[in-house]
Amino acid sequence: MAEFEFQEKKVYYESYGSGEPILLLNGVMMSTKSWAPFIKNFSMNNRLILVDFFDQGQSSYMTESYDHGIQIALIRALLDHLELKQANICGISYGAEVGLGFAVKHPERVRRLALFNGAARTSPLLADIGHAWNEAAKLEGGLAYYLAAIPVIYSDAYYERQLAWMDKRKELLVPYFGNPEVKKRLVRLTNSSENFNVVNELFRLDMPVLVVSAEKDYLIPMREQETLTRCVKDVHHVVLPDCGHASMYEKPLLFCALTLGFINAGHTQFAI
Amino acid sequence: MAEFEFQEKKVYYESYGSGEPILLLNGVMMSTKSWAPFIKNFSMNNRLILVDFFDQGQSSYMTESYDHGIQIALIRALLDHLELKQANICGISYGAEVGLGFAVKHPERVRRLALFNGAARTSPLLADIGHAWNEAAKLEGGLAYYLAAIPVIYSDAYYERQLAWMDKRKELLVPYFGNPEVKKRLVRLTNSSENFNVVNELFRLDMPVLVVSAEKDYLIPMREQETLTRCVKDVHHVVLPDCGHASMYEKPLLFCALTLGFINAGHTQFAI
Amino acid sequence: MAEFEFQEKKVYYESYGSGEPILLLNGVMMSTKSWAPFIKNFSMNNRLILVDFFDQGQSSYMTESYDHGIQIALIRALLDHLELKQANICGISYGAEVGLGFAVKHPERVRRLALFNGAARTSPLLADIGHAWNEAAKLEGGLAYYLAAIPVIYSDAYYERQLAWMDKRKELLVPYFGNPEVKKRLVRLTNSSENFNVVNELFRLDMPVLVVSAEKDYLIPMREQETLTRCVKDVHHVVLPDCGHASMYEKPLLFCALTLGFINAGHTQFAI
Amino acid sequence: MAEFEFQEKKVYYESYGSGEPILLLNGVMMSTKSWAPFIKNFSMNNRLILVDFFDQGQSSYMTESYDHGIQIALIRALLDHLELKQANICGISYGAEVGLGFAVKHPERVRRLALFNGAARTSPLLADIGHAWNEAAKLEGGLAYYLAAIPVIYSDAYYERQLAWMDKRKELLVPYFGNPEVKKRLVRLTNSSENFNVVNELFRLDMPVLVVSAEKDYLIPMREQETLTRCVKDVHHVVLPDCGHASMYEKPLLFCALTLGFINAGHTQFAI
Repeated sequence: MAEFEFQEKKVYYESYGSGEPILLLNGVMMSTKSWAPFIKNFSMNNRLILVDFFDQGQSSYMTESYDHGIQIALIRALLDHLELKQANICGISYGAEVGLGFAVKHPERVRRLALFNGAARTSPLLADIGHAWNEAAKLEGGLAYYLAAIPVIYSDAYYERQLAWMDKRKELLVPYFGNPEVKKRLVRLTNSSENFNVVNELFRLDMPVLVVSAEKDYLIPMREQETLTRCVKDVHHVVLPDCGHASMYEKPLLFCALTLGFINAGHTQFAI
Repeated sequence: MAEFEFQEKKVYYESYGSGEPILLLNGVMMSTKSWAPFIKNFSMNNRLILVDFFDQGQSSYMTESYDHGIQIALIRALLDHLELKQANICGISYGAEVGLGFAVKHPERVRRLALFNGAARTSPLLADIGHAWNEAAKLEGGLAYYLAAIPVIYSDAYYERQLAWMDKRKELLVPYFGNPEVKKRLVRLTNSSENFNVVNELFRLDMPVLVVSAEKDYLIPMREQETLTRCVKDVHHVVLPDCGHASMYEKPLLFCALTLGFINAGHTQFAI
Repeated sequence: MAEFEFQEKKVYYESYGSGEPILLLNGVMMSTKSWAPFIKNFSMNNRLILVDFFDQGQSSYMTESYDHGIQIALIRALLDHLELKQANICGISYGAEVGLGFAVKHPERVRRLALFNGAARTSPLLADIGHAWNEAAKLEGGLAYYLAAIPVIYSDAYYERQLAWMDKRKELLVPYFGNPEVKKRLVRLTNSSENFNVVNELFRLDMPVLVVSAEKDYLIPMREQETLTRCVKDVHHVVLPDCGHASMYEKPLLFCALTLGFINAGHTQFAI
Repeated sequence: MAEFEFQEKKVYYESYGSGEPILLLNGVMMSTKSWAPFIKNFSMNNRLILVDFFDQGQSSYMTESYDHGIQIALIRALLDHLELKQANICGISYGAEVGLGFAVKHPERVRRLALFNGAARTSPLLADIGHAWNEAAKLEGGLAYYLAAIPVIYSDAYYERQLAWMDKRKELLVPYFGNPEVKKRLVRLTNSSENFNVVNELFRLDMPVLVVSAEKDYLIPMREQETLTRCVKDVHHVVLPDCGHASMYEKPLLFCALTLGFINAGHTQFAI
C-alpha cells in the first residue's frame, strides 16, 4: 500500500486504522500478507503498521549477506518516515528478535514490547538447525526445504489435528520453495540471525515487555525464554500450552488478546 | 454504591464506565473492595460491574448453609436488575466457579467467559483442604485460620519476594479472621463449594472461554484445568508461570491484559 | 532390634542383610516401622540400616527444642557404632534434609547420596506451612492436625484414586495425632527444620548425588530442587510425574529402583 | 562375538556376564558397538545381551523395504537361539519401539520392559521428520544428513555444554554418512518405522513396564509418552529433566541406574 526509499532500497509497509500504533514484525518466512486474518482485530482500536523486512515480500531483495542491523535500521527509518516518536512493537520469531534488537538499541522509541516465540540470541543448536535448512535449500525443488523447515514449526498435536490444512500448505509451499530466488532469500534471512545475541543488552529495556512462550516450541526452547524473564526488568511472562513456534497460527485469538490487551491496558503498575 | 433486594436479601454492587459489560466475580476471601487497583483499567473502555456474593462484603450474610445455587441466582438477578441480556463474565477462584456454574445454566446470558484459577469441580483433595481451614477456624483468634488459608494461595517465589507485604497482610488479616462472625461466613462460603461439580455440564458452553491456569496453584492443580480444556468446545488456554492461586495479585498486568484483550478482541474466528 | 547409647539418649536402629550399606532416613511422621514393605527389596543385595531419629519411634524423646544438628550427630554416632567408615545414604523429606546436612558436614562418610523430596533449606513458605501444622496441634483431638498435615503430602490424583486407603489412614492417624505427647514430638521435629539452610555448603558434596523430585510435591517445590541441581557438582536429577511429597508410598517400585540402581551401579563415570 | 542364521540372514549378537538376562536394543543410528561404555555396569550382576538389528552393525543388510516385523522376528529368533524363555528388554528410541512391538506380540517372553525415548506409534509429525532426513540423504556427502538428523536428538543445554564433543562427533559422522550404502541403510531403517502403531495392543502388556521420558525430546514428545502411561496397566513413569532424545549419552548413570534398578528390584508389588 505504501513504500519509501531507505539506503537506495525500497521499504514496503501498510497502515490500517488509528490509535496507539502497533508495529507487527514478521517471522522469517512471512510477509505483510501473512497478517491478513489479523488486520481487522488489530486496527479496531489501534493503528496497525505492517512492514516487509529486506528480502521479504515487497521490500527490496538483498544480494550480499547481512545481519539484523539492516533490519533494525529499516524499523528506525520506518518510524521516522511515519513521524512516530514511539510505537508499540509486537514481533514473532525473527520479528521478535529484530524487535528486541531495535528496543535495546533505541529503547526511547518503544512504548511497549510484545515478544512471541523469540529469544535474545541464536543458540548453537538453533544455528545448526538453520544450517540444516540451508543444506536442504541446495536440493532442487522445494520438497527438501519444506520438510526441513515447516514441520518443525508446529506442535505435534496441531500438526495431527490440521493434517488437511498442512497438505494445503504443502501444495502452496513446495512450489514456492522450489523457486531458487526464494530459497536464496530465505538462506540470507536465516544467516542474518546466526550471530544474534543481545543477552548482555537486555538491561537497557525500560518499557513493559510481554514474553509469550509456546510450550512445544522446538526452535525457541524454554531455557532461552528464561534468559528473557531473568534479565528484563519489567517483564510479564505467559506460556501457551500445546502450542508450537507458529503461535499466531495455532492460537490466533490468544495472539490477538495478549497483544492488544497488553498494549491497550492503561496503567501497568498496580498498588496491590 | 448501589444495591437491590433479591429474595429478601440485599445484593450490593458497583458499576463503572460504559461499553461491553464485564462482570468481575470475587474469590472466597475477597469483596468488591479487593478490585480497587483494577477499576481504572477495567472501566477505561468497558462497563465494569463488581458485586459481593452473599456472605461477602456489603451483601447480606447468610445464616444457614447453602451451595453455589444461591450465588448463581444472585448473578442472574443482578443481570436482570441491570437489564443486561448478556454480559462478559470474568471470575477468579470461587468467582470463576460460580461464573462457570452460571454459564452452564444460562449460556445465553454470557458473551465471553474468562476463568482464572478455577476448576469445574471440588476435588476430594480440595474438599479436605477446605476442611482443614474449617478446623483452623475453631481456634480462638485469627492466626490459625490465617496460617491455614493464606500461605497456600501464593507461589513460593512470590511469598519470598514479598515477605514485607505478607507481614502487612498478616497484620490486617489476623485480627480480621479473629472476628468469629467473619470466620463463620468464610466457613459457610467454603462449604458452599463442597459439592460443586459441573464437569458433565461443560458441553453446554458455546461462548468463547478463556482458561488461565497458574503454574504454582496448589488449590487448583493442572489436572483440573485439563478437564476444562478437554471438555469446553471453544476454549483458549494460557498458563502463568511462577504464579500461585491469587493470580490477580501476583500478575496484575497480565490479569488485566488477558481479560480485556480476550473480551475486547473483535471476531474470535480466524481464517488461517 | 538394636540400640545404643548416645549422649545419654537411646538410639534405636535395625539392620538387615549384607553388602554395600544403605542407611534409609525417615520423613518427619515416619519411623523404622514405616519401611516394612521395603525391607526385602533393600536387603536383597545390600545391608539395609534403619534408624529412628530422636523424637521418632523407639529412639529417645526430647524435651527441649533442637535443630538438625542433634540428628546429624545421631547419624555419625550410628556409623561409628557400626564401624562403617562410609555408607550410602538415602533419605526422604526430613530424612533427605538431615542426610544432606550430614553429607555436607562429613562428606568423607558418604559414598553416594539419594535425596527424595528434600530441599537444601526451609523456605519462608514451608516455614509457615509448618506453623500452620503447629497451630492445628493446639486443637484437642487429632482431626485438625490430620487435616492440616496429611492431605498436603499427596498428589491430587493419588488422593482421589486411593480414597479408601486414605480413609483407613485417617482412622489410624486421627487417634494417633490425638495423643498430646505425639503432637508435642511432631511439633518439635517440625520446628527443628525451621532454620535449616545448607545452600552455601552444597559445594562440599563430592560424591554422586541423586535428586528425585516429585512433580506434584507442594511442600518441596521445583524451585528448591533447582537449587540442588545447580549447586551440587555430581548431581543426577530425576522427576516423578504425577507424584506428591510421599513418593515412597505413591511410587514404591520407582523408589526402590532408583535408590538401588543408583547405589549399586558400578562406575559412575562413562567414557561417552 | 557370536552370530547365527535366521531366514538366510546373519544375526550378530554379543553376550556378557551371567544372571537375569537383559537384552539391550539399539536406536536407529546405533549398533552393538555403541554400548561399549555400558557393558561393565550392565554385566556386573546380569547377563547382558547386545544385538544388531538387520541393516545395523554386523548383522545382514537388507535390500528391500521392510517394517518392524522383521526386527521383532529377529528378537524372537535370538531368544530361541539362546534358549531363553524370558528376558528383560530395555530399548532406546527405535529399540524401545521394536521392543514394545515384541512385547505386545509375545508378552510371555518378556519379564520386565524398560522403554527410553520410545513411543507406541509414529506420529504424523515424526513421520515427516523422517522424510526430511530421507531428503537430506539425497545430497552428496554426509553433511546434510548429519545436520538434519543429529542436532535434533540432543537437548539444547547439552548441545551447548558439549560443543567440543559435538565437533568430534561431526568429524566422525559426516564421512560415515557420506557413504551412500550407510545412508541407504538408515533410510530403510527410518522407513521401517513409518507405519508403526501398537497403541491398540498396549493392553496386552502384563509385565512391569518402565517408561523413561526425556523432557527435551523433540522426536518423542510428552503427548506420546502419555499414551503409554494411560494405556499400559503396570506402568512406572520417570521424567529426565534437561535431557534430549539420546538419553543414554546425556544421562548415562541414570540410564544404568533406572534400568538395572528396575530389572533387579525383587518384588514389584508393595503392601503400602
